[in-house]
Amino acid sequence: MNITIEVISGFIGGKITGDEKKEINNAAKIEEAKPGDLTFLYHPSYEKYFPLTKATAIVVKPDFKKTRNDIVYIEVPEPDKAFAKIIVKFFSPKINLEGIDKTAFVDPSVKLGNNTAIGKNVVISAGCKIGKNVKIFHNAVILENVDIGDDSIIYQNVSIRENCKIGARVIIHANSVIGSDGFGYYNDEKGAFQKIPQIGNVVLEDDVEIGSNVSIDRAALGSTILKRGVKIDNLVQIAHNVSIGEDSAVASQTGISGSTKIGKHVLLAGQVGLAGHIEITDNVIIYAKSGISTNINKPGTYFGYPAKDIKTSLKIEAHLRRLPQYAEKIKELEEQIKTLKELIVKNTDSNQGS
Amino acid sequence: MNITIEVISGFIGGKITGDEKKEINNAAKIEEAKPGDLTFLYHPSYEKYFPLTKATAIVVKPDFKKTRNDIVYIEVPEPDKAFAKIIVKFFSPKINLEGIDKTAFVDPSVKLGNNTAIGKNVVISAGCKIGKNVKIFHNAVILENVDIGDDSIIYQNVSIRENCKIGARVIIHANSVIGSDGFGYYNDEKGAFQKIPQIGNVVLEDDVEIGSNVSIDRAALGSTILKRGVKIDNLVQIAHNVSIGEDSAVASQTGISGSTKIGKHVLLAGQVGLAGHIEITDNVIIYAKSGISTNINKPGTYFGYPAKDIKTSLKIEAHLRRLPQYAEKIKELEEQIKTLKELIVKNTDSNQGS
Amino acid sequence: MNITIEVISGFIGGKITGDEKKEINNAAKIEEAKPGDLTFLYHPSYEKYFPLTKATAIVVKPDFKKTRNDIVYIEVPEPDKAFAKIIVKFFSPKINLEGIDKTAFVDPSVKLGNNTAIGKNVVISAGCKIGKNVKIFHNAVILENVDIGDDSIIYQNVSIRENCKIGARVIIHANSVIGSDGFGYYNDEKGAFQKIPQIGNVVLEDDVEIGSNVSIDRAALGSTILKRGVKIDNLVQIAHNVSIGEDSAVASQTGISGSTKIGKHVLLAGQVGLAGHIEITDNVIIYAKSGISTNINKPGTYFGYPAKDIKTSLKIEAHLRRLPQYAEKIKELEEQIKTLKELIVKNTDSNQGS
Repeated sequence: MNITIEVISGFIGGKITGDEKKEINNAAKIEEAKPGDLTFLYHPSYEKYFPLTKATAIVVKPDFKKTRNDIVYIEVPEPDKAFAKIIVKFFSPKINLEGIDKTAFVDPSVKLGNNTAIGKNVVISAGCKIGKNVKIFHNAVILENVDIGDDSIIYQNVSIRENCKIGARVIIHANSVIGSDGFGYYNDEKGAFQKIPQIGNVVLEDDVEIGSNVSIDRAALGSTILKRGVKIDNLVQIAHNVSIGEDSAVASQTGISGSTKIGKHVLLAGQVGLAGHIEITDNVIIYAKSGISTNINKPGTYFGYPAKDIKTSLKIEAHLRRLPQYAEKIKELEEQIKTLKELIVKNTDSNQGS
Repeated sequence: MNITIEVISGFIGGKITGDEKKEINNAAKIEEAKPGDLTFLYHPSYEKYFPLTKATAIVVKPDFKKTRNDIVYIEVPEPDKAFAKIIVKFFSPKINLEGIDKTAFVDPSVKLGNNTAIGKNVVISAGCKIGKNVKIFHNAVILENVDIGDDSIIYQNVSIRENCKIGARVIIHANSVIGSDGFGYYNDEKGAFQKIPQIGNVVLEDDVEIGSNVSIDRAALGSTILKRGVKIDNLVQIAHNVSIGEDSAVASQTGISGSTKIGKHVLLAGQVGLAGHIEITDNVIIYAKSGISTNINKPGTYFGYPAKDIKTSLKIEAHLRRLPQYAEKIKELEEQIKTLKELIVKNTDSNQGS
Repeated sequence: MNITIEVISGFIGGKITGDEKKEINNAAKIEEAKPGDLTFLYHPSYEKYFPLTKATAIVVKPDFKKTRNDIVYIEVPEPDKAFAKIIVKFFSPKINLEGIDKTAFVDPSVKLGNNTAIGKNVVISAGCKIGKNVKIFHNAVILENVDIGDDSIIYQNVSIRENCKIGARVIIHANSVIGSDGFGYYNDEKGAFQKIPQIGNVVLEDDVEIGSNVSIDRAALGSTILKRGVKIDNLVQIAHNVSIGEDSAVASQTGISGSTKIGKHVLLAGQVGLAGHIEITDNVIIYAKSGISTNINKPGTYFGYPAKDIKTSLKIEAHLRRLPQYAEKIKELEEQIKTLKELIVKNTDSNQGS
């Protein structure tokens, strides 16, 4: 697909320096761009690539020094965001799946919207309702009474268990599992675990995106809920009865234990762990690898395990690095006190002796 | 399914206050219960929902204050456990899979027990023995010479590699992998990794349950073994030659390195990591996110990384939080000593001068 | 398969003590070995099994005390490595997959090398090129324009997304996902996440091995690259635009954030987390559970979070364990200073009074 720089710049409200009639056919990283590519420069650490990039055009900030005249500049206040919008508009990949494959099993009771595509060996069980323009890739399995809203994409080898409810424009990446049983047992008189049937479901509201190899357990009772716009990265664990508020995001390998409630606009970085039955209020950011074992009632940034507000955490960490010096210093002080004591005793003696 | 409160209460040996003839058709959380539902109250933090719940009946402790008379009470010593037993007895979901689907491949050499159900596109390779009443869901793949005991459930997209042995009443949730190769290499003279063939298998004994997206590697030699009643949560890693004793449980995202041996009745919380070639004795509890790099020979509760017994760990953490104050205090003491020294010198001078 | 001890020892250049004509038909761990088995002894902690092992022959170090004469000894300098080579040579399991199954879908445009085996319900989409002697197990899904080099093995339920490039002799274990979308969004004016299309791919070079349930995201632009000989354990997260150098290894449940560059011969232990946009130089070892948030420019061993060089880290940890004592000591010093001060004041008074 060839587009003139003029059209691209117009779309993002940019200011062009150079030949606006040149054509762009791809988007690329600055260090890999070839002639015909559009690139961008945002982070200072990538400036070193500017003198050598072969890109035809570059999206930059308004104050960028235009030291080359063999490249076309498009100036905008936020080059990274503008570049993202250009990719969405002009370079979004086509999702290649059309029609209902003859090897797919769609139970006769399933309601299918128009223009929905179903790949090879897909299983859609009785009672499901699938919306319009949905794409369900090869070898995905959807058990009974699952709803999937319009324009959603289910990638290959995804498993969705019975009774789960998936909204519109939801994306579930390959090999993720929605609605597996929660980890619920009680101990019998012999100390063996007895399984508590998990009779709830999972609800993914509109515009939720789920990474690959994610596990979202069904509720013991009621629903595990991810609200509108929640984004979940790969290999995340979401236990039974968790709820996550609108527009929150959870990075890779983070785990959220049972019945924990997370507010809106919360960001959990990677490998974070949240205990069960706690509440995290809105607008909280938790840094990578933190462990949260109690409620967080105040918006802000938290870090560590047990997590503290970021200032306290960094302060403690700084002191921790100096702990060997402190130990040394304590020893020194001890010595000095000993010396002083001796001096005083000597003085006292000499006084008494005087 | 409608059951009278009388029948339910009788099953758990409860004491009814209210109309024992009323009928229950579902179990629900106290805050979501509707007329016709049974609910329970156990944890004090949920008492706030009692005045508003629409449940028809509620399982409570014997000392519960019966401030409402539009709800039927069932009193038992352990409402949570009693409620779990009620769900098991009356509300267990039916596992919907019957017959052997014509799209499934079952090698002619496979021995199949009575009443076993095999879903669509399932592959069961040569030499497998599958017991009675087993359910194997769609798109699961079972390679050669795998045994699966009676009444086990294998969910969709599960992979079981050759020669693994699965007991009776085992449940394996969707997309888990049993018997992938252990991570075993040696370095050749050029520093490249050379693969060591992993020629062992995995043994899951009776009543084991495995969550979704779990990886259990086959042994390099011999077997990786999970003994009777072991419960494994989602996204857990179990490396080659690990063994886990009876009735132990491993929470989500925990990883157990190669050849480590874990005793009976051990509980590993979430995101714990265990080094390889270590032993954990029986009746050990390890808190979330801990790292264990040496043997644990004494039953008890452990926490931290490197993990210490819980008391020591909490003590150190408390001191850690006060580390900035300690640093401040050290500075103060230094100042005070300096002042004292000056004083003493002054005294000595004045003494000597006198 | 029966092989004489003479042949085995000859292959690894060993020195035999005992009957070299005896035959071996399997390899086993020392504690589980049966007559006919070959075993080895390397780690001192396994010496306790030597008196009881039923193995026919044992690979040992040259200085091993031959206290039994009912077992044949093969002496070599590195018994563990020699044993690994023996397994590779004589006991490697056969990978059971032959021919192209009639239930597999191979798009007519796909180029297939000789002797390639494709299992049941496999999907290989348009434009793919598959080399010679490749084995693709049941229910794997490979989308458009994927290349797979000679002698590679793709296990069951693996998902490979469009345009990814897989080298020769690559192994991908069950249920892993290659080329899922990177976790890339920008915030719109309402604070909602807008998806940035991920238009790059994943490149796995020759001799790469990927564990089970691994997620490797496609690049936003360009490629996520794992170079020759990289080995990845189970449940690892590799985010968009990561690159990993030759002969590096990543243990289970480790996560590498977006655009991070890792050098050659780097070892990341289990549950390590790396921040995005950082660089790790060659020959770095990072211990389990460490968190790396800045560049590492110097080869060496690192540990902790934030990670420090191993010496510093262990020193701080040792001091941390003594922190309660330090706190006690500070209190004592405070008391002593108080006492000294009183003494001095008394002395001064008695001086002034004299």
